[in-house]
Amino acid sequence: MMDPICAISTAFGTGGIAVIRVSGEGSIAIVNALFHGRTRLTEAKSSSVHFGRIVAPQPPEGGEVLDEVLCSVFRAPHSFTGEDTVEIACHGSLYIQQELLRWLIDAGCRAAEPGEFTRRAFLNGKMDLTQAEAVADLIAAQSKAEKDLALSQLRGSVSTELAALRERLLHFTSLIELELDFADHEELEFADRAELSALADEIESKLANLLSSFRTGNAIRNGIPVAIIGAPNVGKSTLLNALVGEQRAIVSDIQGTTRDTIEDTVILDGILFRMIDTAGLRETNDTIEQMGVERSLQAAQKAQIILYVKAPQPPEGGGEESLAKSIAAIKGTVIRVLNKCDTGVQGDGIRISAKNGEIEPLKREMVRIAKEGMQSSAVMLSNARHYEAITRAHDAIVRVKEGMSAGLSGELLSMDLQDCLAAIGEVTGQITNAEVLSNIFSKFCIGK
Amino acid sequence: MMDPICAISTAFGTGGIAVIRVSGEGSIAIVNALFHGRTRLTEAKSSSVHFGRIVAPQPPEGGEVLDEVLCSVFRAPHSFTGEDTVEIACHGSLYIQQELLRWLIDAGCRAAEPGEFTRRAFLNGKMDLTQAEAVADLIAAQSKAEKDLALSQLRGSVSTELAALRERLLHFTSLIELELDFADHEELEFADRAELSALADEIESKLANLLSSFRTGNAIRNGIPVAIIGAPNVGKSTLLNALVGEQRAIVSDIQGTTRDTIEDTVILDGILFRMIDTAGLRETNDTIEQMGVERSLQAAQKAQIILYVKAPQPPEGGGEESLAKSIAAIKGTVIRVLNKCDTGVQGDGIRISAKNGEIEPLKREMVRIAKEGMQSSAVMLSNARHYEAITRAHDAIVRVKEGMSAGLSGELLSMDLQDCLAAIGEVTGQITNAEVLSNIFSKFCIGK
Repeated sequence: MMDPICAISTAFGTGGIAVIRVSGEGSIAIVNALFHGRTRLTEAKSSSVHFGRIVAPQPPEGGEVLDEVLCSVFRAPHSFTGEDTVEIACHGSLYIQQELLRWLIDAGCRAAEPGEFTRRAFLNGKMDLTQAEAVADLIAAQSKAEKDLALSQLRGSVSTELAALRERLLHFTSLIELELDFADHEELEFADRAELSALADEIESKLANLLSSFRTGNAIRNGIPVAIIGAPNVGKSTLLNALVGEQRAIVSDIQGTTRDTIEDTVILDGILFRMIDTAGLRETNDTIEQMGVERSLQAAQKAQIILYVKAPQPPEGGGEESLAKSIAAIKGTVIRVLNKCDTGVQGDGIRISAKNGEIEPLKREMVRIAKEGMQSSAVMLSNARHYEAITRAHDAIVRVKEGMSAGLSGELLSMDLQDCLAAIGEVTGQITNAEVLSNIFSKFCIGK
Repeated sequence: MMDPICAISTAFGTGGIAVIRVSGEGSIAIVNALFHGRTRLTEAKSSSVHFGRIVAPQPPEGGEVLDEVLCSVFRAPHSFTGEDTVEIACHGSLYIQQELLRWLIDAGCRAAEPGEFTRRAFLNGKMDLTQAEAVADLIAAQSKAEKDLALSQLRGSVSTELAALRERLLHFTSLIELELDFADHEELEFADRAELSALADEIESKLANLLSSFRTGNAIRNGIPVAIIGAPNVGKSTLLNALVGEQRAIVSDIQGTTRDTIEDTVILDGILFRMIDTAGLRETNDTIEQMGVERSLQAAQKAQIILYVKAPQPPEGGGEESLAKSIAAIKGTVIRVLNKCDTGVQGDGIRISAKNGEIEPLKREMVRIAKEGMQSSAVMLSNARHYEAITRAHDAIVRVKEGMSAGLSGELLSMDLQDCLAAIGEVTGQITNAEVLSNIFSKFCIGK
C-alpha cells in the first residue's frame, strides 16, 4: 500500500452531504483517531458504514467536534483503489469539508493529486489503463451515447479486444521466433507461410477496424459534427435555431445574414450533435462573402453529417449547379432537406418547416445515421492516445506484411512484431512510464 | 413509513462521485430492482455497502447499464430519516446523476422536496425541531463559530435547556392546578406562594438569558457587526482593507473619500466579523457629508463592536469633542485604536499601522471581545423563529409574575402558564402545524 491520501470526491460547493475519500497505508487508523462512534473503525468489517462524530485529537483543536458523519470502511483489496479506504460522508458545508480535509492532512494524510485514486487502482491491478481512462470519460459524460461508450470501456471492451489481438500476435511471434532458434536448419519451416500471411492480414484488418471506429468514438465524445449548408436564404439559421431550441443564430430575410460559422450542440435520443451553421453558398464577387463560402465548404468537409438545405423557391443569383459539384466531393453523409414546406410545394428530400418547428422527420434521420455509424463497430476507440498507439501498431503490422512479401528474414519481421506488441501494451498500460501516467491522470478531477 | 422519495444529496455539478438518497416505504426494493450485484439489497444487512451496476429493468431502457455504483443500505429505524434508506454513490457525471434520478422516479419514487429527508427525521422522532433546523445551519456554516453553534444545537443544547425549563414550568402549573381542584377549600394552599414566586423569577430569568443570547447567536450566524468610526482621514478605509485583505474601499489622502458605508466580512480565529467602514465624523455644513455622518452614527448604534480610530495628528476641522459625546451613547463595545503608529508618536488605545498591515493586536482584541460574548451563555439562540417564540414565552411568564403580585386567581395564572408552555413547545416542535413545518423545511436544500 502507498502513503495515505485524501480528497473531497463530490462536486465543489455546498450540498446536503459531501464525501471525503481517504486511501492508503494506515488510512483506517488515521480516520479512526478522529472518529468517535460505537465501533472502532480499525475493528470494522470491510464494506460497513458507521455513524459517529469527528473530534480533534490534539491541540489546538483538541476536543473540538467538527461534525457528525457516516464512515464507510473498505479493506484492501476490496476497495476502488485496492488499498484500505475510508469514505467520510459529512454535512455539505464548504467550511466543514475544507476543515475535515485540513484535519486529515494534520493527522498524516497527503492531499491527493488529480486522478490519484484511479491511478492507484491501476497500479494495484484493479483495472488496466483503458479502464482507468474510462473513469474520467464517465465522469465527463453528457449524453447517453457518451456514457455507454465510457462504461463499455470501463467494463473492459477495449482491453478485451486488445487482449485477443495480443494473443494472436504472440502466437505469430512465437512461430517466427521458433524459426529463428532453428536458423541453422534452413530446411525447417515451422510456420506455414500462407498461414502466417493470413494471420498478419487478420491482425492488420482488426487494427484498421479499431482505427476507423475512432472517427465515430471521437464524435460521440465531442459531438457528431453536422454542417448545415445550402444556398443563401433557404432557412439554414432558422433550422439551427429550431434544432437547438433557442435563438442561437441571427435570422433575417436578407441574404448573407450569417457570415461566420456558428456552432451549438443538441442532444437527440441520447446522442450529442455539434451543429455548424454556415454562410449561404453561392457564386459571388464579394470578398468577405467568398471567405464565408470557403469556410462553409471547409465545415462541410469536416462534418460527419451534412444537412443540405433547399427551399421550394430557387434562390436569387442561382449557383445551385456549382454547389452540387462541391457537395459531390464531400465525405460525410449528406441529408437532403427541403425547408419552407409550410408553403405546400413539391420537391426532393426530407420535408420540414424550420420556422414552425416541424423538423421531427429530420431529427429521426440524423439519429438513424448516427446510430448506423455506432453499430458498425462493436468496440470503439474514443481516446486520442489509444488512436495514436494503435496507429503505430497498425504501421508495424503493415511493415510485417510487406516484409513477408519481400521475403525478409524472421529476425527483421520479429522486430516489427515486437513494435506492434509494444504499441498495444502502451494502450492497456502493460508497458508504460511515469510521464505517460502523469499526463493521463493530470486530466482527472481531484477526488477520483 | 412514508412514500419513497429520492434526491441528489451532494452539491450540484460534476464531481468524482455523487450521492443519491432514497428513503421511505419500499425504497430498498425499488433500488434493488435496478441493482445488479453480488448481494440482493433486499437481503442486505443495515449499514452495509454493496458494489454493483444500475441496470434498467424494463423498456425503453431495458437492459441498459447506467453506471457502476456503491449502494449503502440502512434499515428503519437505523437511518437518518428513521425509514428504510439507500444511498447510491454513482460516478459524478451530471448526465448520470440526472438519469439515475429519472430511473428512480420511473421505478416509483417521488422527487423529494427541499428538506424532506430532515422533515421525516423530525416526524419519525429522530430529532426535535431545533435539531432539524440545526441541520440546515450546519450545511450553511462558513466559520468555526457558526459550525460550533449549529452542531451544539444539532446535538440538543437548545432542546435540553428548554426541556429543563419545561419541567420547572410543569411543576409550577401542577401546583397551581392542584389549588384549582380544591378551590372549594379556600383554606388549602398547596403551594407556598413565596416558593412559587421564586420559581416564576427563575423561569423568567432563564428565558431572559436565552433571549439575550440571541444577539450573539444571531451575530455568529450573520457575522458580528463591527463599525469603524472616527474623524476624517484617520485611515478607517485603510484599516478595513487591511482587515479584509484586499482593496475593498477606495482610499486617498482626501478627507471624505468614503461617503456610503461599505461592508465586507472577515473570519478571524474562526469567527465571522461583518466590518462596516463609515464616513469620517466631523461637524460639517455640507449636506451630503452630514448625511454620511448620520449614517456612520447609525451603523455604530447597530454594531456590536466599534473600532474608534484616531490618528496622532489631530484632524483638520476638529470636532473630536462632539464625536466623543456621540460615542458615549453607543451600546456596543468600543475599542480605541491609534492608527498611523509607524510615525512613532505617543497616544491612547491599541497602536496599529493599517497602511503597513500591522494590525495584529487589534485583531486579537476583536476576537477576545467576541469570545467573551459567546462564553457568557452556554446555550445560544441563533434562530429568529426560536427568538420570536421564546419572546412570547417570556411575555407570558412576566404576566404570571404580575398576576401573582396582583393576587390573581389560579385559574387566570394557569392560562398564562399554558401560553408559556405552548410557546416553548413550538420551538422544539411538540406543538406545531403543517404550515410552520413547510416554512421551516422549504429553506433547506434539496437532498437533505
